[in-house]
Amino acid sequence: MTKEKILEAHARIAPFINRTPVFTNSTFNALTGVDAYFKCENFQKIGAFKARGATFALSELLKENKGNNLHVATHSSGNHAQALAWSAKQFNCKATIVMPSNSPEVKKAAVKGYGAKVIECEPTLEARESTLKKVLDTSNAIFVPPYNDENIITGAATCALELLNEVNVLDAIFAPVGGGGLLSGTALASKHFSNGKTKVYAAEPEQADDAYQSFKLKSFVPSKDPQTIADGLKTSLGQINLPIILSEVSDVFTVSEEDIKKTLFFVYERMKLVIEPSSAVAVSALMNSAKLFKGKKVGVIISGGNVDLSQLASWK
Amino acid sequence: MTKEKILEAHARIAPFINRTPVFTNSTFNALTGVDAYFKCENFQKIGAFKARGATFALSELLKENKGNNLHVATHSSGNHAQALAWSAKQFNCKATIVMPSNSPEVKKAAVKGYGAKVIECEPTLEARESTLKKVLDTSNAIFVPPYNDENIITGAATCALELLNEVNVLDAIFAPVGGGGLLSGTALASKHFSNGKTKVYAAEPEQADDAYQSFKLKSFVPSKDPQTIADGLKTSLGQINLPIILSEVSDVFTVSEEDIKKTLFFVYERMKLVIEPSSAVAVSALMNSAKLFKGKKVGVIISGGNVDLSQLASWK
Repeated sequence: MTKEKILEAHARIAPFINRTPVFTNSTFNALTGVDAYFKCENFQKIGAFKARGATFALSELLKENKGNNLHVATHSSGNHAQALAWSAKQFNCKATIVMPSNSPEVKKAAVKGYGAKVIECEPTLEARESTLKKVLDTSNAIFVPPYNDENIITGAATCALELLNEVNVLDAIFAPVGGGGLLSGTALASKHFSNGKTKVYAAEPEQADDAYQSFKLKSFVPSKDPQTIADGLKTSLGQINLPIILSEVSDVFTVSEEDIKKTLFFVYERMKLVIEPSSAVAVSALMNSAKLFKGKKVGVIISGGNVDLSQLASWK
Repeated sequence: MTKEKILEAHARIAPFINRTPVFTNSTFNALTGVDAYFKCENFQKIGAFKARGATFALSELLKENKGNNLHVATHSSGNHAQALAWSAKQFNCKATIVMPSNSPEVKKAAVKGYGAKVIECEPTLEARESTLKKVLDTSNAIFVPPYNDENIITGAATCALELLNEVNVLDAIFAPVGGGGLLSGTALASKHFSNGKTKVYAAEPEQADDAYQSFKLKSFVPSKDPQTIADGLKTSLGQINLPIILSEVSDVFTVSEEDIKKTLFFVYERMKLVIEPSSAVAVSALMNSAKLFKGKKVGVIISGGNVDLSQLASWK
């Protein structure tokens, strides 16, 4: 994942994705003493940064396959499902998405709305993987993984690339970490486009702290039955993602469920942004460690805004 | 309220207020066939366009009084209370705000947080007015009204001025109407800065349709016990506002409570913006009348984002 590859990815996906705005907030800055810049991927296509990686991965597959009847597939209950379905629609490709039967109806409807085929399965990782395997074995479909993939990481890196182009010079960037696609992409973009001046920090729920543990122990620790409202951050780190994180990320901060909820409401009430809990994790990590970043220019990646609003009040 | 006065107001308040962004949304446009531009005053200081009028009114008073111990006062349970308190703080002035005792604690706290004095009264218009009168009679405080005031209207007009500067050439602008400050300011800005090319439409809740009635009958009809979740739009039209509206506004559209709620969730879920119900009224009015504006460039003023999120689920 060279500098050139990230620039190529950005040029390739730019016609399809939104150039999302970078927001500042005087209340946040007054409260924390930090000069913060929020990269708003909640305003991205499908409401999350995942549109970047899916679009780039598909465009690479199209190049390899020279555009002939490309059919992609994945399993996901979240933003990657929508991202792959949406980008398949942009390129007139076929997409099959395996979704657990307990996925919210609104998410299944969104995926179908983009023209993808939804195959439901039992809500276990085993069922998801075996159902996807059946799809791959019985069709010409190509698997596009959600984060453990070079093209997905390169696509995700374009988000920090835009942020670094817009704000000169950031001292740090905070990104949430689940599987590690966004975090490893952000770290690579900072390495290549800030001359190492911009340090990258990860933010993770205390109750899903496998990346924290993996980072501290410098070896893979799987995620075990995580209990957090940040549903996007429950997965284990990918094999490709972990070494990048170990070599390029400066530290991992964890955040309590109470802080995630409090920060979520801060962002809704004071910044007027609809964000998903995973994004509140990054904002909260910066708030909690603000004294380390006093007077510094710090970017925060607001990873997405796909949230079940009927749950919101229960988090108050 | 001349063209020059609006330009002067904009130059005067620009150092204090946010230049709010104009958003587009491909889902909205695909659904409606309209080319829509959303002027996001939910991102304005204090979370609503009201910061504009209050800042300009105060700066005019400071000019007249040459900056000596200015003390301003008003009664408000809503955005005007915060706007006046906030702008008084910008100019180091004293502010006294009469608030009904049943105002949410969070709103009282916000007003006090800006350094204003809060005086509570019974939650009736009579009590609000008599309590304010006592303040004005027993101090040097000057009343800054929420909408029925030339400076407030001129300040509000700067919002459409920015929108018209940014999007060339709008066929129409939708604005919500309560007391009529935003609507009359928008209408005057369109008259002066679009050469009459941009028509202005008002949006009002069906269940608070005094402006609709006043517009159709061409004479003042007071608001009577309105029952709507759009709490910012319950007031009667101001005396100064009505004639401007009658002469410059093209039509008034009303919207059902069900449509206000549905549109509120559309904006949260698809546009990722935290808006207050009053703003959903304007978006909804355009959605409902979309066939009249097919292929047209239409601005919508998202007036504010101050909403009690604990109520959100009850509107679903």
